[in-house]
Amino acid sequence: RLATLKVNVWTLLLTVTVCDGWLFDGFAARRHSESDEVALWPLPQKFQTSVDAFRLSSASFQIVHAKESTAGPSCSLLQNAFRRYYSYIFGNGRKHGKNLENVFDADLAELQVQITSADPECDGYPSLKSDESYQLEVNQPTAVLKAASVWGALRGLETFSQLVYEDDYGGQNINKTSISDFPRFAHRGILLDSSRHYLPLKVILANLEAMAMNKFNVFHWHIVDDQSFPFQSRTFPDLSHKGAYHPYTHVYTPADVKMVIEFARMRGIRVLAEFDSPGHTFSWGKGQTGLLTPCFSGSSPSGTFGPVNPILNSTYDFMTRFFKEVSTVFPDAYIHLGGDEVDFSCWKSNPDIQKFMDQQGFGQDYRKLESYYIQRLLDIVSTTNKGYMVWQEVFDNGVKLKGDTVVEVWMNNNVDKELQNVTGSGFTAILSAPWYLDYISYGQDWKKYYTVEPLNFEGTAEQKKLVIGGEACLWGEYVDATNLTPRLWPRASAVGERLWSDENVKDVGSAYDRLVKHRCRMVRRGIPAEPLYIGFCPHEYSGN
Amino acid sequence: RLATLKVNVWTLLLTVTVCDGWLFDGFAARRHSESDEVALWPLPQKFQTSVDAFRLSSASFQIVHAKESTAGPSCSLLQNAFRRYYSYIFGNGRKHGKNLENVFDADLAELQVQITSADPECDGYPSLKSDESYQLEVNQPTAVLKAASVWGALRGLETFSQLVYEDDYGGQNINKTSISDFPRFAHRGILLDSSRHYLPLKVILANLEAMAMNKFNVFHWHIVDDQSFPFQSRTFPDLSHKGAYHPYTHVYTPADVKMVIEFARMRGIRVLAEFDSPGHTFSWGKGQTGLLTPCFSGSSPSGTFGPVNPILNSTYDFMTRFFKEVSTVFPDAYIHLGGDEVDFSCWKSNPDIQKFMDQQGFGQDYRKLESYYIQRLLDIVSTTNKGYMVWQEVFDNGVKLKGDTVVEVWMNNNVDKELQNVTGSGFTAILSAPWYLDYISYGQDWKKYYTVEPLNFEGTAEQKKLVIGGEACLWGEYVDATNLTPRLWPRASAVGERLWSDENVKDVGSAYDRLVKHRCRMVRRGIPAEPLYIGFCPHEYSGN
Repeated sequence: RLATLKVNVWTLLLTVTVCDGWLFDGFAARRHSESDEVALWPLPQKFQTSVDAFRLSSASFQIVHAKESTAGPSCSLLQNAFRRYYSYIFGNGRKHGKNLENVFDADLAELQVQITSADPECDGYPSLKSDESYQLEVNQPTAVLKAASVWGALRGLETFSQLVYEDDYGGQNINKTSISDFPRFAHRGILLDSSRHYLPLKVILANLEAMAMNKFNVFHWHIVDDQSFPFQSRTFPDLSHKGAYHPYTHVYTPADVKMVIEFARMRGIRVLAEFDSPGHTFSWGKGQTGLLTPCFSGSSPSGTFGPVNPILNSTYDFMTRFFKEVSTVFPDAYIHLGGDEVDFSCWKSNPDIQKFMDQQGFGQDYRKLESYYIQRLLDIVSTTNKGYMVWQEVFDNGVKLKGDTVVEVWMNNNVDKELQNVTGSGFTAILSAPWYLDYISYGQDWKKYYTVEPLNFEGTAEQKKLVIGGEACLWGEYVDATNLTPRLWPRASAVGERLWSDENVKDVGSAYDRLVKHRCRMVRRGIPAEPLYIGFCPHEYSGN
Repeated sequence: RLATLKVNVWTLLLTVTVCDGWLFDGFAARRHSESDEVALWPLPQKFQTSVDAFRLSSASFQIVHAKESTAGPSCSLLQNAFRRYYSYIFGNGRKHGKNLENVFDADLAELQVQITSADPECDGYPSLKSDESYQLEVNQPTAVLKAASVWGALRGLETFSQLVYEDDYGGQNINKTSISDFPRFAHRGILLDSSRHYLPLKVILANLEAMAMNKFNVFHWHIVDDQSFPFQSRTFPDLSHKGAYHPYTHVYTPADVKMVIEFARMRGIRVLAEFDSPGHTFSWGKGQTGLLTPCFSGSSPSGTFGPVNPILNSTYDFMTRFFKEVSTVFPDAYIHLGGDEVDFSCWKSNPDIQKFMDQQGFGQDYRKLESYYIQRLLDIVSTTNKGYMVWQEVFDNGVKLKGDTVVEVWMNNNVDKELQNVTGSGFTAILSAPWYLDYISYGQDWKKYYTVEPLNFEGTAEQKKLVIGGEACLWGEYVDATNLTPRLWPRASAVGERLWSDENVKDVGSAYDRLVKHRCRMVRRGIPAEPLYIGFCPHEYSGN
């Protein structure tokens, strides 16, 4: 038997000079499209790899806690991840016989995972401040993955699994590799909308899986909107009972929500719930009489309703109780409060609102009324000790915001100016404007998403630091369980690399080569990610 | 118990005057959007329905051969269809207890299927001349479906199953109804492309199911192209062995092809195979040395290849043997020979071709060379006793065609002029230009497909009769098993109704209401048809 397998895909594909025993390193790699044969996605910040290849035996290979690790077998988050990545690497039920005794020199016997912080955060939730960095050394006979906390370990496990490749004999191999990696942006989100269409749990969980494969760490759950209210509240059960598409089959029960949060946590993903108001609340009104503004036709109510009624104390009493519940249901430190696209026509039609406007001295400026509402809402949510995120209008309209507010820039006109203004005022921003993935078009639109540079606006270094990330948004008008997953992936993967990798990782051609392989990897793992273009995967999606 | 169930969805939804005991009829229906609550898709040519509702018992309801029928239990096509439609109506394993003894007055006991022609065509293949018309009378205690042949019976069974609706207690009901139906166009096709991406059998079969639900009757199988040659030929096994993406996992074996043809036949669907040449043949060259034209760079071969080499006898020998096999593998009376998008640059570069052009007196007109090739190919295929279909260029270039040639109009400029020319020359035409469903865009593009009127060109009544139908084409650059089905349905359903229903059935609003329900019906039957817009289905797709 050969001590080291040198005949493998690398030697066939690469024609790069070997320097210092390493085939290439992270920065050189960006100048060599050959690096892309590794098919790492998103590309790590720094990596070196070699032609030295080691085999992994499905019978004997193990992922284990390093002796020095502060985490151990009681860390169910890691235990779960070890199992998950073992099965990604070897497939389910693809055993190649038992040869536990039979470990060759050329084998990689195990991956040791070492958590270095005193608190590994096994039972914690990921946050904006989580340390996701990790170091990975793949060498004989053991590979070592080091991370401060479980969050970095999760990212490193994904990278490790991506380094493994199948040879022509169906065996799994990995090359000698050294990686030091960390995310460029702390907030890397996917927005899904479960109001325009109800999304069965299975779909949400599948997409959390896919998010982890692309190192996303925020699931922005636009859970309710005008069209339906699937969130089952214990305090106000009528909200979903009357506001969901169906009170039993089209709701998220508290147990469902818990499952989503835990499934996400196990993958280092925050669940950021959005309860958008005062607009986008039509469905709220069905189960909460008096919450919405009655619209008038002339001098009498027309029977239709507008945004949340901002002039009644009952509104704020309701919001206080509702957000008290929401703040306990969702453990994340942030709640998204929406605040976008408020239509003023109903407010304008209502004589009581007009009277209130006069009393407050707002004149005919309904933005002032909106701000009044938002201001009171923010104060309410502040008492729950949550931070909040808002859509950009809230900032644009001059609402007074807490210093740690995150402003989400979504309007695709004047994005640079908006980022300049938001960060210039000292607020934190995330960018979603260029990444509305519900807008589909013919061809490879992922390239458009990929080539966005979030920090291209004019501003100081301090301002740029305030842009903490972005989100790919898949609004729900045209997607449900039938088509959501292939429409989102791998288009969102382009955003994933933009938000994780170094800003110099921007060559579309080399990204294409890696993304094609990454997409086939997702398919092999059961995610029906659609093709980028003509071609095939060794293991095709077989249909449903 | 009530003799007749009058309380049902109809009475709640309809506010139409009852005339002659019937709630409305087919032509009145088109003036009343209420008719759309029936959610028949495509809309039958003539129908009347009533508020009288009958219940169907899953325990006792049967679909049977009428005593007078020329088909009986030995007609496996119908036996199979009876089973299929029973399970569409009652779901799999959704029995409501046994009450065979317990048939109430208000129940519909059975559907009798009566084939009236001497030859029911149980073991035949559908053809361009198949009679797909049927009459359906739903009344107590039996419903009767009459059709000349099994092909009409299949369409009638689909319609019958669409008439059944679930009441609030989970029971299945059907209203008293009278339908007389037939297709407006004889050729109603779906083109799928298994070359740009390999399509697993499962995907092809699922889409044949969906086609039957929409009364499509032609599966235009664009089986090979430049990118890959998955068709396994017995005569030339190297074509797929070397030309497929993978010789074992990405091919259609003779058994696979047979299965597709039989599955389609059972649903009244023709399998029209396309072997496109002389362009679009790059993959052919891998397994058939000497077939393609060697391109030249200056005076020496460049190593690349162009279209089929039209100047060699060996080319025509190959085509003779190849199409002899193809003509036996595919039972349909037509073969599609392609003939589109021939790139002349390689032919121009090749000195032998130039010499041949001189000899033939073609000058520099490479269209003449193309016509020369096509002419010889058509003559070859004619000897197999098959008719042929070609893309419009073959007609445009003045190739001499047999009278029964079908010309497929696909270029979306000057469609009307082209139809005028093709039919003006006495040829049969099918239209696909406005229905390239691979071109996706944001929003409800089905409306665009729906509002096409194929006979809007200037021409005589005789000319219009020569337009025998159309095809929705889903070219394969961006679709494979992961996303094909939801991308095709229900967008192709719009084309389905255009090609089946009366030309006056064109109100987009009422179509929307029916299509939303039809799409949910497809979802309930296991087809992941994507949503048209915001909303929900009572039985959502659960994911994979």
